[in-house]
Amino acid sequence: MSTPQVQVIPDGSITSTPGFEAAGAACGLKPNGALDLALVYSPQPCVGAAVFTTNAFKAASVLYNRDLLARNATALHGVVINSGCANACTGERGLRDAEATATSAASHLAQAPSGFLVMSTGVIGTLLPMDKIRAGVAQAALQKAPSVDAGHAAARAIMTTDTRPKEVAVKVITATGEFTIAGMAKGAGMIHPNMATMLCLLTCDAPVTPQVAQQALREGVECSFNRITVDGDTSTNDTVLLLANGLAEMQPITSATSSDYPAFLAGVSQVLTTLAQAVVRDGEGATRFVEIITSGARTEAEAKQVAMSVARSLLVKTAIYGQDANWGRIICAVGYSGVAVEPERVRVWLGDLELFRNGEPYQIDEAHARELLARPEITIHIDLGQGDAQATVWTCDLSHKYVDINAHYRT
Amino acid sequence: MSTPQVQVIPDGSITSTPGFEAAGAACGLKPNGALDLALVYSPQPCVGAAVFTTNAFKAASVLYNRDLLARNATALHGVVINSGCANACTGERGLRDAEATATSAASHLAQAPSGFLVMSTGVIGTLLPMDKIRAGVAQAALQKAPSVDAGHAAARAIMTTDTRPKEVAVKVITATGEFTIAGMAKGAGMIHPNMATMLCLLTCDAPVTPQVAQQALREGVECSFNRITVDGDTSTNDTVLLLANGLAEMQPITSATSSDYPAFLAGVSQVLTTLAQAVVRDGEGATRFVEIITSGARTEAEAKQVAMSVARSLLVKTAIYGQDANWGRIICAVGYSGVAVEPERVRVWLGDLELFRNGEPYQIDEAHARELLARPEITIHIDLGQGDAQATVWTCDLSHKYVDINAHYRT
Repeated sequence: MSTPQVQVIPDGSITSTPGFEAAGAACGLKPNGALDLALVYSPQPCVGAAVFTTNAFKAASVLYNRDLLARNATALHGVVINSGCANACTGERGLRDAEATATSAASHLAQAPSGFLVMSTGVIGTLLPMDKIRAGVAQAALQKAPSVDAGHAAARAIMTTDTRPKEVAVKVITATGEFTIAGMAKGAGMIHPNMATMLCLLTCDAPVTPQVAQQALREGVECSFNRITVDGDTSTNDTVLLLANGLAEMQPITSATSSDYPAFLAGVSQVLTTLAQAVVRDGEGATRFVEIITSGARTEAEAKQVAMSVARSLLVKTAIYGQDANWGRIICAVGYSGVAVEPERVRVWLGDLELFRNGEPYQIDEAHARELLARPEITIHIDLGQGDAQATVWTCDLSHKYVDINAHYRT
Repeated sequence: MSTPQVQVIPDGSITSTPGFEAAGAACGLKPNGALDLALVYSPQPCVGAAVFTTNAFKAASVLYNRDLLARNATALHGVVINSGCANACTGERGLRDAEATATSAASHLAQAPSGFLVMSTGVIGTLLPMDKIRAGVAQAALQKAPSVDAGHAAARAIMTTDTRPKEVAVKVITATGEFTIAGMAKGAGMIHPNMATMLCLLTCDAPVTPQVAQQALREGVECSFNRITVDGDTSTNDTVLLLANGLAEMQPITSATSSDYPAFLAGVSQVLTTLAQAVVRDGEGATRFVEIITSGARTEAEAKQVAMSVARSLLVKTAIYGQDANWGRIICAVGYSGVAVEPERVRVWLGDLELFRNGEPYQIDEAHARELLARPEITIHIDLGQGDAQATVWTCDLSHKYVDINAHYRT
C-alpha cells in the first residue's frame, strides 16, 4: 500500500467538494450587520457523522443533531449554522427552536426536515430570535450556489470572535480513483479538548458508509481538535460534522479494511489538523503559535497529558507573550501534570536550543533564546526519557488582548 | 465539649507566639535592596510538621525539609526563608546550598544544624548566591528580636510579587489553658492546590506531639490552601510549616482524642484560612475576591471539583474582571468539570441573585447584577441538587495586570 496522495486545493472552501452548495446570509443576529447565518446544502443525499462536546450542558443543537443522526445517518442534505447566539442552556424551547430551524431549511429546499442538521455559536443562555433565523434561512436558500465564493461567505457567516475565516480543501488520489474533502471551522475562545473546537463542518464526495465516516472522523479529531487549547474552557456547543455525498467515482469505502480507508483517513485528518491549527493561530489575542511535543513517554496518553499541562499553563503562555525564556515554568507544568516523571531524566528544548537536562540548570544562549521567541511560531520539545510514546499539541500565548476580548464579550 | 474560643490578636505577626524571635534582612537577592531573607527562631526546641507541594519537580528546600523532618521532628529551632531565588531544578548543588543555609544559621545561633529548616521562593532554575545568603543569615541572627515589628519585617522579607505582607495571629482559649498560633505566608502567582500556597509558616506554643501537629496541619491545609487558585499553576516550592515550642501552660495534646485537639485544629484552621484568603486577595493583578460555594453534591470531593472548575475558568475570571454577569460561562465550567451533573437540577446564584434554574434562561435583574459585580467581594453559589455535600473555594479575577506581571517576570 502506497502513501495516500493528499493535495491542497488553492483557495479552497466548503463548496470545493463537487455536489455541495453554500450561502452566507446576514439576518441581524450580529448587531453590526455582518454575515451571521450559513447554509451548506447537497441535493444528493449524504452520509453523516459527528463528534460532539463532552460538556454536561450540551447546547440544543448538539442534542438535536445527536438524536437526528441516530435516526438518519444516510439521507442528510445539509446544515444551517448561525453565529451570535449559542442556543445553549435554553431548555425545551431551545430544542424546539433547533428543530424549527431545520424544518425551515427543509421547506425552502423541498426536502424532509430530517435531512437538516443545525449548529449554533455565540452567547450562552439566550433564545434564538426565530423570526430572524427564518428570514436568514429563506435568504440563504435563495442565494445558495456551488461557487467557491459562496463557500467563503458561509465560512465568514459562522465567525464570532474569530478574526479570519478558517477553510481548507484537499484532493485525495488513491489507486481506485480520487475524491475531495473540504472543511470550514470557527473558534477562537472557549477552546479546549473534548471537543476543542466550537464548530467545524467537512464535506466530502467519497462513497463511505456512516460507520466508516464516524470512525475516520473520531480518529481524525483525536489527533487534531482534541490536541489544541486556547484557554482551557470546553464549550457547550463543540461539534464537528462530516457530510459525504458519495459522488466520487471510486471503489466504495465500506470498512476500515477497505483499500482506500487509509487515504480517506489521511485526507480527513489533514483537513481537521489544518483547521484545528487555524483555530489556535486565531486564538483570542494570540500573538504566537506554539507547538508542544512530548516524546519519551510510557504511553501516548501520558505524552498528551504532559504536553497539555504545559499548553494550559498561564505562566508558560504569558512568558511566551513576554518573549521570556522562562523554562522553569515549563518544568513546573511538567511536574504538576499528574504523570509520574523522573526529574533527572527530563530534557527540554526551545526550538533547537536545549534548556534543561539532568535535573539541573543549563547555561543557555539567551540571545538565541530571544531570537527564537521573537518568531511567530515556537516549538517546545519535552523528552521524558521513560519510553517511546509521543504526542503533539498546539496552543497560543496569553496576551492583554485575550483579557480585553473576554472581559466585555457579552456587554 | 464547648466550641473552642479563637480570638484574633490585633496587629499580630509571626512573633506574637511567646518564645519566638524573628528578623528580616536585605542581602541583595532582590535588585532593589528590599528585605529578602527572613529568620524565625525559637531558643526552645520545637516540634515540627509540614505539608509540601505535590509537584514532581520538588525544590531543594522541599527535599531538604522532608528529609530533615523524617529524622528530627522534635528538636527544631527555626527556619531561614529567602525570596528572589527558588533554588528549584538545581540538582545536587541546590541540595548542598540548602544544607549550607541551615548550617550557617545553626553556627550563628549555637545550635545543631539539624535544628533549622529552609524555604526559598523566586525564579526557578537559578542557584542560590551563597555569599549573599550567608551574609543575610549573619545579619538576621544579629538582628533577631521577639518584637511584633521583627515579625512584620520577616513577613515583608518573604514577599515576591506580593503587594502586601500576609500575617495573622490568634489566641485560643480552652478548658485547660490557652495558647497562641501565629502565621505568615507569601504567594500571589503560581497558585493552585496541592499545595496551593507558595510558602507559609506557623508558630505555636501549644504542647503537641509531632503526630498531632502533622494531623492538624494536614486537615487545616485541606480546607484552606488546597481550596484556592489564582492561575492554576502548582509551584515546585509550596510549603506550609508549623513549629510548636510547647511553652503554653495547658494539658499536652497527645492525640486527636485529647480534649484540646478540637481547639488546636480550630486555631490552626483559622490561621491557615485567613492566610490562604489573603493570598487570593493579593492574587497577581486581582481586582476581585471571589468565593465559590458548591452545595447539593453527592460528595465533598465532587463539590470541590465543580467549584475548582469554575474557579479556574479564564472565561469566568475575565467576565468578573469586566463586571459582566455572564452566567453561561459559570454553567459551562460546571458542565466540563468532570462531575456527572444533571443540567435540569442545577441552580446558580450571584450573591442573593438567582441566575439559572431548570436548565433554562432566567430573567435576571441586570442592574442588581452589575451592582453585585462592582463590589470587591463576590460570592457564586452553585447547587447541584444531587445530595448534601458541599465545599467552598476562593479565587480572584483575571486582569490585564496579571499579564503585565507575568509576561516579564524573569527579565
